[in-house]
Amino acid sequence: MNKTNQKVNAAIVVIGNEILSGRTQDVNVVTISRWLNDLGVKLEEVRIIPDIEKSIIKTINQMKKKFNYVFTTGGIGPTHDDITSKSIAKAFKLSYGYHQEAYNILEKYYGKDKFNEGRKKMAMLPIKASLILNPSSGAPGFIVDNVYCLPGVPSILKSMLGGLNNKIGGGKKILNKTISAQTVESEIAKSLEEVQNLFQSVEIGSYPFFRLGKIGVSLVIRSTEKKQIDDCYKQIINFLKKKKIHIMER
Amino acid sequence: MNKTNQKVNAAIVVIGNEILSGRTQDVNVVTISRWLNDLGVKLEEVRIIPDIEKSIIKTINQMKKKFNYVFTTGGIGPTHDDITSKSIAKAFKLSYGYHQEAYNILEKYYGKDKFNEGRKKMAMLPIKASLILNPSSGAPGFIVDNVYCLPGVPSILKSMLGGLNNKIGGGKKILNKTISAQTVESEIAKSLEEVQNLFQSVEIGSYPFFRLGKIGVSLVIRSTEKKQIDDCYKQIINFLKKKKIHIMER
Repeated sequence: MNKTNQKVNAAIVVIGNEILSGRTQDVNVVTISRWLNDLGVKLEEVRIIPDIEKSIIKTINQMKKKFNYVFTTGGIGPTHDDITSKSIAKAFKLSYGYHQEAYNILEKYYGKDKFNEGRKKMAMLPIKASLILNPSSGAPGFIVDNVYCLPGVPSILKSMLGGLNNKIGGGKKILNKTISAQTVESEIAKSLEEVQNLFQSVEIGSYPFFRLGKIGVSLVIRSTEKKQIDDCYKQIINFLKKKKIHIMER
Repeated sequence: MNKTNQKVNAAIVVIGNEILSGRTQDVNVVTISRWLNDLGVKLEEVRIIPDIEKSIIKTINQMKKKFNYVFTTGGIGPTHDDITSKSIAKAFKLSYGYHQEAYNILEKYYGKDKFNEGRKKMAMLPIKASLILNPSSGAPGFIVDNVYCLPGVPSILKSMLGGLNNKIGGGKKILNKTISAQTVESEIAKSLEEVQNLFQSVEIGSYPFFRLGKIGVSLVIRSTEKKQIDDCYKQIINFLKKKKIHIMER
């Protein structure tokens, strides 16, 4: 993909009953999102869906058309609830079975004696998939077209992202600058909107917080254009000073 | 809704650039999901979407048909990026303007002198909305049809859920039981699948973990039927004992 293309986008599909049931706090979205920022890819949607084949197929078929990259997390292990590989094969109408390269990697990792039925299941993939190598625990992720399938365990997922850096062609790196001010949103809403209207290629987010007994608002300026961020930043600092609002951090 | 209806479902729409950009870790999904479990409502999908009007309208129009309840989080504050109320009005083709009840609550909360333009914006809602009262900070959430709009700030959201308990008619409470065993998934995958096949009204999830230097797998049994959970639990304990696998917690 063209490195200067500024509108490269991505979606994440979290496949996991454990997230929907509230048992597990997802942390993979933040990890992938921050990694994508550095590669200049904008995360534009996340869907968390259950471990149900038809939900996975339907969601993947929608998302792969809509976004440059789709990342899935979860469901590539050895148990009965791990149905991502099979579902992706069905979504792409690809045959599903032992993937020779994955089989060899896993056999080598576990040793022939310990390469049991459960472990062999992790070598069952869409046949034409290319692999995402797993430095943590052997079992690879895989890529079909623009869909990248990663595991759900956060530490393993993290260890696998680095290997994808060369495969994800992004646009310009997405930059940001934050100002935290001791105020409430309603005091600055109008001035902030005026600044936002001046800078159309910049996204200004306003996020109230309460911490260490203090009330404040964090203003986050995001753009691929450093100059736009800097100019916008100055305008915000200016109106905060005019209003005599204490700037806590910048 | 019928209290004995077992298939009451819900979706969450997280409206927030700050979650997609990786700046903020969402924690509201877990909060809402656990609260719904107790009310017997099953969370079946989550979508995280940007602060873009047409995305919100499209997503809400899809989700409100598909699920008994839709909860949105975020975007109901006073700043330019808070566009949930307006977007929901458009999704439902309702007029949007000062909501008298919300206006009165906010005016009383802030006092006439401090009820400025930014704060008044929080009283702008779909005109026919009913309110979700906010014990933490005045500004109410609102309900249109089966869509429940809540704020993004976790502590405020939490404080508002209690007031909805009587409005969310669920099915049977969703129960769960967890067994943590010192093993790896591939050792138990086959036995686990056999048990799953015996109990179709039960969902068994298998989640590997590494903690305090120990490797293990948590097996989570979920169902609305206590007896089914208990029977399934016994079968799992049995095969773990047969395999001489250490049960760490149950």
